[in-house]
Amino acid sequence: MTRLLTKSEQICQTLHRYIDSGQLTAGQQLPAERALSERFATTRITVKEALSTLEAEGIIYRAERRGWFVAPPRLIYDPARHTHFHQWITEQQRSAETRLLGQGTELASSDLCHWMAITPFTPLFGIRRQRLIDGRPVLHVSHHLLATRFPGIECQPLAGSLTELYWHEYGIGQGGARLEVTPVAARGEIARVLNLAQGSPVLRLVRINYDEDGALIDCDIEHWRPDAICISLDTRPGPP
Amino acid sequence: MTRLLTKSEQICQTLHRYIDSGQLTAGQQLPAERALSERFATTRITVKEALSTLEAEGIIYRAERRGWFVAPPRLIYDPARHTHFHQWITEQQRSAETRLLGQGTELASSDLCHWMAITPFTPLFGIRRQRLIDGRPVLHVSHHLLATRFPGIECQPLAGSLTELYWHEYGIGQGGARLEVTPVAARGEIARVLNLAQGSPVLRLVRINYDEDGALIDCDIEHWRPDAICISLDTRPGPP
Repeated sequence: MTRLLTKSEQICQTLHRYIDSGQLTAGQQLPAERALSERFATTRITVKEALSTLEAEGIIYRAERRGWFVAPPRLIYDPARHTHFHQWITEQQRSAETRLLGQGTELASSDLCHWMAITPFTPLFGIRRQRLIDGRPVLHVSHHLLATRFPGIECQPLAGSLTELYWHEYGIGQGGARLEVTPVAARGEIARVLNLAQGSPVLRLVRINYDEDGALIDCDIEHWRPDAICISLDTRPGPP
Repeated sequence: MTRLLTKSEQICQTLHRYIDSGQLTAGQQLPAERALSERFATTRITVKEALSTLEAEGIIYRAERRGWFVAPPRLIYDPARHTHFHQWITEQQRSAETRLLGQGTELASSDLCHWMAITPFTPLFGIRRQRLIDGRPVLHVSHHLLATRFPGIECQPLAGSLTELYWHEYGIGQGGARLEVTPVAARGEIARVLNLAQGSPVLRLVRINYDEDGALIDCDIEHWRPDAICISLDTRPGPP
């Protein structure tokens, strides 16, 4: 059953142990690839292969033009509990930041009509945001609000908590939600905002939100870096 | 805002339209790459680029030594409802098949101790299975049963419904479950069984199952082809 590890596997194992044992900690920078190839007495290609493997596992990540870093632990996301991004992140002793990428009126796309169960040409208000945790971009989210429920929304500050804005300005509270989780490929702005190559795998969460009376509020389309999140939930079995 | 599409994007768009319009249907084979490069009047490299993009989106898939095929629609998986794999698949007018890969006693791994909240050296009984939908391998699952609750399990047929086996042979019914969903990289047997390259992205579902009295039954570790599944669930917000 046992076989010798390849050089690339040896590098992975060594870095895994450094990280598991706390000798390398979250956010710490790895030596440059050239330095690693010298220390492991192997080629740059083998080092790159090992680093790509660890990247795919979510153990390390690449920061543009700055090299490789040890990834922080995944965020634990309970979709039944977490509606306030900043509060949820702070509870996990991490720091959150939100950047507004764009906003404006829009017509419901074919996908949005399907998800929100609305008719074509329904007027929506769209908000696109980038969210960072501990300074690292991990989430691209677009919010699609039923425009008729949010008069004057274009004049509101849209980089903060929308949940609080909905409540304080419009008296709309969060009721239930329907959630779809799908692995997809990152494209265009989404890939750019998450520092990922075009076509890289990301986790898409589509969340359709209803108020306390069960009336539709909006739809959030979240794209998460696959190494940043772990979704956790409790279920009860339904009728057989 | 508008820009010309690259050749690769044109190919993607054309194939998307063929599929959306039903001119190409699930399971249908695409022309060979060489034939596609002739029809689109471009290079094999550009065709491969377009096909890889569609593969990453889950629109098409590659069958070993047989070429490219239109992917069937994703399975809709509601973790709160679906505990019987075969019943759930049949409800979606698809055909399910389960193959036993291996079984035997095992000691709880460090990860299993964490997930199941059990002590090291707890005896478990492990079952590894491959699951196919419409003849295509989409799921690798390993079940880790608390051995003390399942005397004689090694003599039972393990390619069928475990839920039914638990109930009929051991009087153990399904209560609640805790679920973790994490994007990870496929390795070893998991990649092989799913026809994926080592290191490809897969969706891991860890499910810890409890009986009606809340006592631990087992832990299922599922690895899904990322193009095969969409998780769908309803949530109610918890206390603020």
